[in-house]
Amino acid sequence: MTPRIEKDFLGTMEIPKEVYYGIQTMRARQNFPITGLTVDPELIRAFAIVKKSAAQANAATGKLNAELADAIVQAANEIIDGLWHDQFVVDPIQGGAGTSLNMNTNEVIANRALEILGHDKGASSIISPNSHVNMAQSTNDAFPTAIHVSTVALLIELLKTMEYMVETFEAKAQQFDHIIKMGRTHLQDAVPIRLGQEFLAYAKVLRRDIKRIKQTKEDLYEINLGATAIGTCLNADAAYITSAVEFVRENTGLPFKECENYVDGTQNTDIYTEVSGALKICMLNMSKICNDLRLMASGPKAGFAEIKLPERQPGSSIMPGKVNPVMLEVVNQIAFQVAGNDATISMASEAGQFELNVMEPVLVFNLLQSIRIMTNGFEAFTEYCLKDIEANENVLRANVDRSIGVITAIAPHVGYEIASKLAREALETDESVRSLCLKYEYFTEEQIDVILDPFRMTTLQTK
Amino acid sequence: MTPRIEKDFLGTMEIPKEVYYGIQTMRARQNFPITGLTVDPELIRAFAIVKKSAAQANAATGKLNAELADAIVQAANEIIDGLWHDQFVVDPIQGGAGTSLNMNTNEVIANRALEILGHDKGASSIISPNSHVNMAQSTNDAFPTAIHVSTVALLIELLKTMEYMVETFEAKAQQFDHIIKMGRTHLQDAVPIRLGQEFLAYAKVLRRDIKRIKQTKEDLYEINLGATAIGTCLNADAAYITSAVEFVRENTGLPFKECENYVDGTQNTDIYTEVSGALKICMLNMSKICNDLRLMASGPKAGFAEIKLPERQPGSSIMPGKVNPVMLEVVNQIAFQVAGNDATISMASEAGQFELNVMEPVLVFNLLQSIRIMTNGFEAFTEYCLKDIEANENVLRANVDRSIGVITAIAPHVGYEIASKLAREALETDESVRSLCLKYEYFTEEQIDVILDPFRMTTLQTK
Amino acid sequence: MTPRIEKDFLGTMEIPKEVYYGIQTMRARQNFPITGLTVDPELIRAFAIVKKSAAQANAATGKLNAELADAIVQAANEIIDGLWHDQFVVDPIQGGAGTSLNMNTNEVIANRALEILGHDKGASSIISPNSHVNMAQSTNDAFPTAIHVSTVALLIELLKTMEYMVETFEAKAQQFDHIIKMGRTHLQDAVPIRLGQEFLAYAKVLRRDIKRIKQTKEDLYEINLGATAIGTCLNADAAYITSAVEFVRENTGLPFKECENYVDGTQNTDIYTEVSGALKICMLNMSKICNDLRLMASGPKAGFAEIKLPERQPGSSIMPGKVNPVMLEVVNQIAFQVAGNDATISMASEAGQFELNVMEPVLVFNLLQSIRIMTNGFEAFTEYCLKDIEANENVLRANVDRSIGVITAIAPHVGYEIASKLAREALETDESVRSLCLKYEYFTEEQIDVILDPFRMTTLQTK
Amino acid sequence: MTPRIEKDFLGTMEIPKEVYYGIQTMRARQNFPITGLTVDPELIRAFAIVKKSAAQANAATGKLNAELADAIVQAANEIIDGLWHDQFVVDPIQGGAGTSLNMNTNEVIANRALEILGHDKGASSIISPNSHVNMAQSTNDAFPTAIHVSTVALLIELLKTMEYMVETFEAKAQQFDHIIKMGRTHLQDAVPIRLGQEFLAYAKVLRRDIKRIKQTKEDLYEINLGATAIGTCLNADAAYITSAVEFVRENTGLPFKECENYVDGTQNTDIYTEVSGALKICMLNMSKICNDLRLMASGPKAGFAEIKLPERQPGSSIMPGKVNPVMLEVVNQIAFQVAGNDATISMASEAGQFELNVMEPVLVFNLLQSIRIMTNGFEAFTEYCLKDIEANENVLRANVDRSIGVITAIAPHVGYEIASKLAREALETDESVRSLCLKYEYFTEEQIDVILDPFRMTTLQTK
Repeated sequence: MTPRIEKDFLGTMEIPKEVYYGIQTMRARQNFPITGLTVDPELIRAFAIVKKSAAQANAATGKLNAELADAIVQAANEIIDGLWHDQFVVDPIQGGAGTSLNMNTNEVIANRALEILGHDKGASSIISPNSHVNMAQSTNDAFPTAIHVSTVALLIELLKTMEYMVETFEAKAQQFDHIIKMGRTHLQDAVPIRLGQEFLAYAKVLRRDIKRIKQTKEDLYEINLGATAIGTCLNADAAYITSAVEFVRENTGLPFKECENYVDGTQNTDIYTEVSGALKICMLNMSKICNDLRLMASGPKAGFAEIKLPERQPGSSIMPGKVNPVMLEVVNQIAFQVAGNDATISMASEAGQFELNVMEPVLVFNLLQSIRIMTNGFEAFTEYCLKDIEANENVLRANVDRSIGVITAIAPHVGYEIASKLAREALETDESVRSLCLKYEYFTEEQIDVILDPFRMTTLQTK
Repeated sequence: MTPRIEKDFLGTMEIPKEVYYGIQTMRARQNFPITGLTVDPELIRAFAIVKKSAAQANAATGKLNAELADAIVQAANEIIDGLWHDQFVVDPIQGGAGTSLNMNTNEVIANRALEILGHDKGASSIISPNSHVNMAQSTNDAFPTAIHVSTVALLIELLKTMEYMVETFEAKAQQFDHIIKMGRTHLQDAVPIRLGQEFLAYAKVLRRDIKRIKQTKEDLYEINLGATAIGTCLNADAAYITSAVEFVRENTGLPFKECENYVDGTQNTDIYTEVSGALKICMLNMSKICNDLRLMASGPKAGFAEIKLPERQPGSSIMPGKVNPVMLEVVNQIAFQVAGNDATISMASEAGQFELNVMEPVLVFNLLQSIRIMTNGFEAFTEYCLKDIEANENVLRANVDRSIGVITAIAPHVGYEIASKLAREALETDESVRSLCLKYEYFTEEQIDVILDPFRMTTLQTK
Repeated sequence: MTPRIEKDFLGTMEIPKEVYYGIQTMRARQNFPITGLTVDPELIRAFAIVKKSAAQANAATGKLNAELADAIVQAANEIIDGLWHDQFVVDPIQGGAGTSLNMNTNEVIANRALEILGHDKGASSIISPNSHVNMAQSTNDAFPTAIHVSTVALLIELLKTMEYMVETFEAKAQQFDHIIKMGRTHLQDAVPIRLGQEFLAYAKVLRRDIKRIKQTKEDLYEINLGATAIGTCLNADAAYITSAVEFVRENTGLPFKECENYVDGTQNTDIYTEVSGALKICMLNMSKICNDLRLMASGPKAGFAEIKLPERQPGSSIMPGKVNPVMLEVVNQIAFQVAGNDATISMASEAGQFELNVMEPVLVFNLLQSIRIMTNGFEAFTEYCLKDIEANENVLRANVDRSIGVITAIAPHVGYEIASKLAREALETDESVRSLCLKYEYFTEEQIDVILDPFRMTTLQTK
Repeated sequence: MTPRIEKDFLGTMEIPKEVYYGIQTMRARQNFPITGLTVDPELIRAFAIVKKSAAQANAATGKLNAELADAIVQAANEIIDGLWHDQFVVDPIQGGAGTSLNMNTNEVIANRALEILGHDKGASSIISPNSHVNMAQSTNDAFPTAIHVSTVALLIELLKTMEYMVETFEAKAQQFDHIIKMGRTHLQDAVPIRLGQEFLAYAKVLRRDIKRIKQTKEDLYEINLGATAIGTCLNADAAYITSAVEFVRENTGLPFKECENYVDGTQNTDIYTEVSGALKICMLNMSKICNDLRLMASGPKAGFAEIKLPERQPGSSIMPGKVNPVMLEVVNQIAFQVAGNDATISMASEAGQFELNVMEPVLVFNLLQSIRIMTNGFEAFTEYCLKDIEANENVLRANVDRSIGVITAIAPHVGYEIASKLAREALETDESVRSLCLKYEYFTEEQIDVILDPFRMTTLQTK
């Protein structure tokens, strides 16, 4: 097929006839062969939503011919429905602050709209990627708006998965509430706790993570659509902006709203570092939880062996019968990835200059990846591991029974100093704390049974 | 002076007669000669507040003899007032999850209380650091509570300073609101903006930082006092806890409250990563702002020379007359320090295990340092730099006048493609956009004057 | 097509008839739907080299039947040549320390080898993925060896590209050696320098980066093949190990060698952090260089305008005629990505436990990505930007001519204090340093011409 | 006492009569009240060495009067010997790229030299901080040279301590070489290993750390003294530079040498990131080692209890008799601090611009701290923990005896599949692998005793 010739102010290029993107996308492909990947499909959909909303607003305010607007809207709808994603070929790590991705979108929509109207691709005098599809927009408002829209969409999925995961933790807490277990600080035996209390503490911290992440989602509803190049809203006007944001609301069903200050909204990327920060905190917590679970599941013979994880796959290519805590290990690794992504996002955010942060492409690449892998990882972890964890009650109870840490309950009665002496003696002689207390006649049997009752020790006393 | 002999369950040590700390502090000094520094005075004060509140609650609930309690309270008050800080000699980076600092506090208070009551230091049978000063407490609740109290205290100072800094930015925004300036994206000339709009955007993002930091301060009001060793509240009881937290409120004048779940509150450190995260985001923003200001102030002859900073010190030991933007550079460095501290805090937070995070000492060392240096840096920056920044109006205006970026305002009238051609011609011929527009008769003089009015270009059009 | 049934010690699964992978790969796909990506092709090739070498060694030492070995070698060769890569379907972020990727490889090779020998896929009694393809190996030596082999392969490409980039910097240094330019410290005018000296300094630091990266490549030649499960070489023997490593050398043409201590070589991942560290340092340097170039290229009217970058693509969707430094911005972003990857790698490396680091999958995912994007980015940057940078000699010279920084050359003659006074007067009056020196008769015209000769100022004086 | 009045080109200030520093230090104190700390004493000493060497070279090349030079040298010697350190009052985090610290040094030396010569402090017409003490220098060469000199000095101490630590690990490896232990991967029982092999692996990786750190020390010997302001050596000459570096060699006894390219040597900070990178890698390794040791020492009743650490201090303020692994925990925390410091150093290094990196103060503050705390921590760890670790041989052996992991040694004889079945049966029935093998008659007693000999399993077979 003869290629078509396209032109921009730097020259002309041959474009394969069948493709929907145009000259600027071609230039970007040549310039940025970096990761070999493409951008997240949710970002593509979000960009289409932005283009659709802008076209609707431009039509409503009389700047864009209705027929053209309809064709643009239809093309955008197709992309929202998942068509033409293979035409988004620019690398997620790209120079130019996202202009290449914006122009890729403009070009695909323009050409598809031309086709819808019965014209040839490339007929930019009829529908121009810049003048029509990008009308009243700049990359510098369209891209951030698309980032907000796609990030919110992915966060909603993440929050759903987190809710399910936390509820599962809470169910396990219920299930394990009667099981006594040795508490450990510094990996050294401390005082008793109930296994259910451990799982409930995990649920609690994750509920705070949900709250933190939810808060950042709320903050993302402010969008800078209409800011155009640098936030002065040049070439947009108040009516268009109000209308465009209204259409974004309508097209997403979500409460997006005009940002308070467009100059600020265009140059600052703190909201992304805020989202990423909340994700990182969540993963630090999850990594700690997974470490705890891996420790409790260690064994089967030479470890703690306090819980049993569902067996998901043979653990070793050489050691027969070995099974490993793979679903936990993958969550640990997601934690490290998300923490590293946060470092990237932080450096990218610091590198803004004046009216724009040109590092947004790498920033959003990492941000969306973080949310995706958390969602995927939590789902798999909950389904394939968490919900089927079992307790080895006997092991747990035996640990408490032989432990010296229960001496702590004795201390208020005999003083820290005497209690210390008893503890040392128990350790050296292997005699139990209970028997030593009786031997030295600090307590009667009745008293000691109350004081050393492990369930009592794990419950706030109101007497 | 003959030293006194003190004893713990590991043996005895000689303690210099004059010092108020005891054997456990001595051991800690030997074990942890790491940084050579001492802990933040605010943390010392906060620890004294915790000890005072606990003693008051133990007295109120009848567990601690009133005379002893009074002496302990008096000793704690002296520390709160700034006395005896030189007796807090343990290194901020210490093993043992803060037990050494807790015991340092217990020992100083015990010995000072003994002295108040007319006894010799070291008379632990009368007042024991563990049994009396530490009564119903563990390091694992006393230390986190002290961290919360001291962090809130320092955050209050920080927020005051930030408020002052932001108001100064807002005042500058007002002062510079009439000054037209070339906007830049990618460090390339874009379209006009007003200098006041830039400063207002700085104020806006910092207002969000204030909001974020303030939120974390609210979250710090939940304290785990009463959790004791692992959050099961062993050796504390409900009446004591309610009373102790009430006394913390009274002793600080701040709305501290019981935490929802003590097991969670004792093992999880997410609130510290949350605070640190908010601080880091703020500093990333500040670093970007300082970079902008340093760029605008570059020169005096071979730079942008758009603003003039107050001269604070000779800039060079070899280049006479040189003056450098030192107050900005120091803020950049604070940003890097706070970002690095956040990395430390994140790793420390991830390293919790089971019922405790033993890495809290390094965590709080970094957290308090971050808040301190931000407060100090913002104060100096505002006072010695920000409030006396001046604009070089002529330079700013001249940049706009000769720029090609104003072509953007033409584009909606002639189309992106023709506008591009004009822009290129302007660049190559050095003819102005205005004159080219007239030459090719795209507009009348009246029209072009409206379209190219830079103030109009920087204001949202409501037509 | 009827699926085949495969079995492992956890149960059975249906495997689609056409696929070459088996039950363990199927389990891994279900367990780890994390990134949606597949592993780097170079890692697949490296794994095939490991399997081929092991089969050759097992045949040579008489443990593996020659016919089976030949089939395994042929299957591995096909993968090395690029076939069957679509059968490597496990996610790069996976639990299990790489066992899933190892088993994916074992299964594909076993089934392809069976096919070569005329058997049905899945006939594990003839060729077993574990007993034959994985013979004398564990994931814990096969995977690290494959990581070493693939990392070296990618580093060789990177180093080639870096050499080309540095030579281009050196050529520009030569080209620009005669061009005088204002040096800047603190973004404030300092003393003159030649543009060529700037580019030479860039080349110099990058030569050190090459040296650092090359050193890490040397360190990668030590491989732990033969260590098996934990470095005790259980189920391998000395003759096999010597032979297997010899075959790795032969199959790669590279000087791989047996590691000194297999327990160490199996559990420690410091070599990966070492490689990543060297990559990060390089990117910090590159980011600084790109920042310099972006500053020098700022303008065209309201910036430094000292150099001109090749125009690669229209810079704005809204601002006609704008061109941005996109090839530099993409390198900055690669720097942030590589720095973030290093954070991930560091955390993963710290998380090793006892005889193994189970976090290797995320570690190698980030490591290979870093090398890939650096290679791709440097190639594009050099080709599309660096080699065609031009100097705006007039602007550069004019900056020097009007600068006050040249006063530094006066100072040794009149003292720092008087020189300071002259500098201030020059700044306030806009009179030149030269003319002030003559006015106050500090020098004759002949003297001042020598002292203020900018070329003399940029050259080490040997007088 | 009446203060003296000092003057610079920005005005005059009153200086307390007794202090040795002057007006520029006063300004810096006011401008940078950031951390409240002072710079590392080794950096003060190194700065004095630089000033001494420069004065000697200036005297040797005839530019500095011998009497003045002698006085400057004597003043510098006093500082090198530890005097006047209390006069170095500028904050380690300062704007101005170290000019304040350089001027603090210049002023103290100038005033002390004046005093030596019988003059009043402040008599800058006789000895000027800028013209005489700073002669032929700029902050931009004096400061980096001082950083190199002080870093090398601290690294030498660190390397000595590391050598001692590694030798202690090696001695423990020897001591524990006969003790059989269960190897663990994924925290799950794997195959046997000897405790000595574990400690030897720790020694091995730390030997590589020594090698890496030593390499960076070598790289630090290149200094840019003579580069002056921006590396063009303006106001220095070749004879002076050769002489000054010769004097640095003489005054330190270390092989410092002229850097290859002064422009490069002045603007690039990659050597610091290189040092910091090597430190970070070392600490990641140490953190992993400490985690292993903490796990092995967990217990005493409900943990692994495989080793016993020396008891250093009571572990809990509430739990009597508890002892915690405090010397390990402090090393973990040092690891997090050093990793965070590396993040700060990386960001600071990336922020260089043109001929200088003005972020050097925060960079060196973190770098020297990292080295200091590592040295201190390793010393304490080795002395108070490592050298007295004991093995619980019985526990270690019992773990091996009841483990199923030894099945791995059976697999090559019966195939992975049958071995897997045996392993599962052993786990479910609690029958030993040995007894199952005999029951199913896979081996004779003689055969199984050889195959399952744990020492044989931990030794490379050469048969």
